[in-house]
Amino acid sequence: MPFITVKVLEGKTTEQKRELVKKMTDVVTETFEVEKDKVFIFFEDLEKDNYGKHGELFSDINK
Amino acid sequence: MPFITVKVLEGKTTEQKRELVKKMTDVVTETFEVEKDKVFIFFEDLEKDNYGKHGELFSDINK
Amino acid sequence: MPFITVKVLEGKTTEQKRELVKKMTDVVTETFEVEKDKVFIFFEDLEKDNYGKHGELFSDINK
Amino acid sequence: MPFITVKVLEGKTTEQKRELVKKMTDVVTETFEVEKDKVFIFFEDLEKDNYGKHGELFSDINK
Amino acid sequence: MPFITVKVLEGKTTEQKRELVKKMTDVVTETFEVEKDKVFIFFEDLEKDNYGKHGELFSDINK
Amino acid sequence: MPFITVKVLEGKTTEQKRELVKKMTDVVTETFEVEKDKVFIFFEDLEKDNYGKHGELFSDINK
Repeated sequence: MPFITVKVLEGKTTEQKRELVKKMTDVVTETFEVEKDKVFIFFEDLEKDNYGKHGELFSDINK
Repeated sequence: MPFITVKVLEGKTTEQKRELVKKMTDVVTETFEVEKDKVFIFFEDLEKDNYGKHGELFSDINK
Repeated sequence: MPFITVKVLEGKTTEQKRELVKKMTDVVTETFEVEKDKVFIFFEDLEKDNYGKHGELFSDINK
Repeated sequence: MPFITVKVLEGKTTEQKRELVKKMTDVVTETFEVEKDKVFIFFEDLEKDNYGKHGELFSDINK
Repeated sequence: MPFITVKVLEGKTTEQKRELVKKMTDVVTETFEVEKDKVFIFFEDLEKDNYGKHGELFSDINK
Repeated sequence: MPFITVKVLEGKTTEQKRELVKKMTDVVTETFEVEKDKVFIFFEDLEKDNYGKHGELFSDINK
């Protein structure tokens, strides 16, 4: 039943996402005592032009 | 005033979205007794690599 | 597989939410040709102090 | 600590986003008395086919 | 048309939210050249037990 | 930089959330090779009346 959204800077590989889904699902099932087939995970890729912190666009900070 | 977000696997057609906006707006206006011009609907297309369930990436389950 | 979030002003009754879940699920299964047990709906109740439009808090507009 | 998400119709320029990040961060730091490096802003570009209002797709209203 | 969500630690006053809605709407209308009545702002109050950073619950960091 | 939102049925204890924040942060830092102080986690408690699946309110399914 947990629905998890992971917003992260673009550039993560499918392999990294595959690994995270596996490990994160394990952590959630252990901690919340829910079954594995109740865990849903969504990734949101954040473009550098769509992320601002400290008053600046991230694409300006990390050129 | 309802603001509705529909997160769905990529691949839905514009025609399907058009139909859903029409029917969903009807349902909401009837049930919540709000005017049609107060209903806002947003779609979020979910890529298969960005969706994990049951500990696996959806792109690995539905190859 | 559709995950639907309905943000709406506080004050809707459980009966209205029950009805909306039923009707909205019907509309989604028809339009997107998905099975009923793949549709998830979440409500978010919006307090009048937590909603602003047109430059004003809603609690100031609707006193 | 404020985390701000700005969902807006696609087509805004990087320059507009840069300016909004700067000004919005100023407004938030003043009003909430938080430090500038605690303010995070995310943009979500909304395609015209993914936005419906008043029962119609926006791409049908604004052809 | 911009829909803005402000997630912030609980404890902000209605006066602070009122002021933020006013100033943020001004900033958005100027930068994006949209009319004032197209700007919607939502606050989400974050409880200290519902916020974790750096591997710790915020309620444990700020006791 | 990952911003993670965990939407889960109400009733989780602070101890469970504390443990999840710790373990989830570990998993994310390992998999995405980011520093621990870049990981932010938000919980959203879902009331049974605000969650519908399979066309029914969860509060009707789990009485």
